[in-house]
Amino acid sequence: MKSRRKARVGLKDLAREVGVHVSTVSRALNPDSGHPVAADLIAEIRKVSKRLGYRQNLAAYSLKTNRSRTIGVVVPDITDSVFPPIIRGIEDGLAQYGYVAMLANTDGNPRRQVRVLETMRARGVDGLILASVLRTDKTLSQLAAGLPVVTVSRRTDDPRFSSVVHDEDDGIGRLVTHLVSLGHRDIACIAGPQTVSTGFSRYNAFLRHRDHAGLSASPALVTYARAFNESEGERCAEEFLVAGAPFSAVVCANDRLAIGAISAFRRHGIACPDDVSVTGFNDMPLADRLSPALTTVRVQHSKAGFEAAGLLVDLIENEAPEPHHLVLPVETVVRNSTARCALAAGARMSEAAGEQA
Amino acid sequence: MKSRRKARVGLKDLAREVGVHVSTVSRALNPDSGHPVAADLIAEIRKVSKRLGYRQNLAAYSLKTNRSRTIGVVVPDITDSVFPPIIRGIEDGLAQYGYVAMLANTDGNPRRQVRVLETMRARGVDGLILASVLRTDKTLSQLAAGLPVVTVSRRTDDPRFSSVVHDEDDGIGRLVTHLVSLGHRDIACIAGPQTVSTGFSRYNAFLRHRDHAGLSASPALVTYARAFNESEGERCAEEFLVAGAPFSAVVCANDRLAIGAISAFRRHGIACPDDVSVTGFNDMPLADRLSPALTTVRVQHSKAGFEAAGLLVDLIENEAPEPHHLVLPVETVVRNSTARCALAAGARMSEAAGEQA
Repeated sequence: MKSRRKARVGLKDLAREVGVHVSTVSRALNPDSGHPVAADLIAEIRKVSKRLGYRQNLAAYSLKTNRSRTIGVVVPDITDSVFPPIIRGIEDGLAQYGYVAMLANTDGNPRRQVRVLETMRARGVDGLILASVLRTDKTLSQLAAGLPVVTVSRRTDDPRFSSVVHDEDDGIGRLVTHLVSLGHRDIACIAGPQTVSTGFSRYNAFLRHRDHAGLSASPALVTYARAFNESEGERCAEEFLVAGAPFSAVVCANDRLAIGAISAFRRHGIACPDDVSVTGFNDMPLADRLSPALTTVRVQHSKAGFEAAGLLVDLIENEAPEPHHLVLPVETVVRNSTARCALAAGARMSEAAGEQA
Repeated sequence: MKSRRKARVGLKDLAREVGVHVSTVSRALNPDSGHPVAADLIAEIRKVSKRLGYRQNLAAYSLKTNRSRTIGVVVPDITDSVFPPIIRGIEDGLAQYGYVAMLANTDGNPRRQVRVLETMRARGVDGLILASVLRTDKTLSQLAAGLPVVTVSRRTDDPRFSSVVHDEDDGIGRLVTHLVSLGHRDIACIAGPQTVSTGFSRYNAFLRHRDHAGLSASPALVTYARAFNESEGERCAEEFLVAGAPFSAVVCANDRLAIGAISAFRRHGIACPDDVSVTGFNDMPLADRLSPALTTVRVQHSKAGFEAAGLLVDLIENEAPEPHHLVLPVETVVRNSTARCALAAGARMSEAAGEQA
């Protein structure tokens, strides 16, 4: 392929063309160098540089400055609709500062994360934005040693890693208040994986707000999903039916769990929202076009990515790398998956549970 | 930040530790160098390299070989659900060969694409995978000069750019056949933007299969969307109602247009599929959970990305850079948005059109 590649115009070519030493060209094009060049000479060198199509060789720049202006962005799986707007926000944020994003997926597999982070380090990334982190991650501090890190949408229990997350507690609190205002007292919870901060904090928020409102605290009304997806939502909903404790509403740790739960209930003849109200979290794309349209918490995915990018560049370029934690506000979106608690619902639930048992 | 960064272990450190010349270390770690080193010495150098945590400095490697093992991946907008599985496939494909992806969005804005491609070139990408291309793009051959390029999901009219696309013609043909088998004769078409190969080829496929089946060829039964999104689907559906020509089914250039069209029809009291059948294209996430669930064409987004990555690495690493064009097979997924043509439908349509006029 080398034959297809045009010879790159270098500093030497510019120097020859202008008739000055190569170091003069270098200083002219790098105003931060501290060795000023006469303004008219700078202008001439810039003109020639433009005419010859000179592009700064970032590999050379990177060797010299130890900066690549490249950031590693790691997500569990870009095909999960939570992550694209985050990545989009990161890219928009980085572009402001002339940085670009290198992207990788881990599938939530710690070994794949190790490989990904090693690859990115080998390419000299200046920092990392991680949406893939677990609450505790033993390999992370080693793999990220010396590199600025911001986690986005999730955080680690280790406060040294800066983070941008959503106000999970407020979001769940608003949903519980909404359900209570509709007359629900027996509210079940499909919790997310507890190894991930979102799963952990939404679950704890549920317990806190449930107890604060004086609602039923039956252990049978909580199940734990192993992943944030539809099939786990279905499995957890079936568990409630088997357990047989009465409930009229379910708070799910995200939209995909809610979609799965609604499907499973429907298969057992339990209609949402007539027999059971169900809430999600995230307001994913098409949440408004489902049947029933989902009552959920809208989070600012894109803004989170954008803020994480700004935070990371700040950590890279400034001399005071204090970790920083940002919590973005959320709002509830009330749609058709929640409705006034029907007295009959409890009975329908028990019936369905009876069939199961 | 420099203070936080550990000094990097270099070839010199390894040479000092093993007690050999630095060039020996370099040759030992680069088996392709053509100057072999004794096997036991290689083993020792590798051991020391591992112990000291040596990582190849890819910036130095890149300067020397003019290869970065980094690929630029450009999409219009990662938050459109078509693109994440493509990107995922690209990343999985590149990982096989030790390449990584640098990602950018263009928002379909040619000026942003210019900026993005310049940034990527400056970082020395070895090649480009573009999902953002238009059929004709004057700046592209200049911006990509000398770089291997593969377009994915879309192609340019210029056959010198290799491509991986889906069999649009077969997909549309299958949908038309399906609708005809349900008794539909008056089939409308919401075509996509004609500047993009997917929009252009799906539209032409519709004309061909419609005429082949001897169906109504009224010009009033074709509208052109300005973008592949829900609001354009709504606008185009309204146009049909204003025009007033009878139809009982609509073939849409993608799922999002179909979702918009179904919403617009519903607002006018025209139910899908009872009064009108509607088809999409792509089988996007949640297409099966909508109400009605969408009849559509399933394409292999992830495989397209994977194949594009393989093709590009082949163009980069092999000496015969002949452009290559791959067309992946598709399948239809029949769900609830299509049904047997009801004789009453024509009347309902005319009624709604009358209200509009």
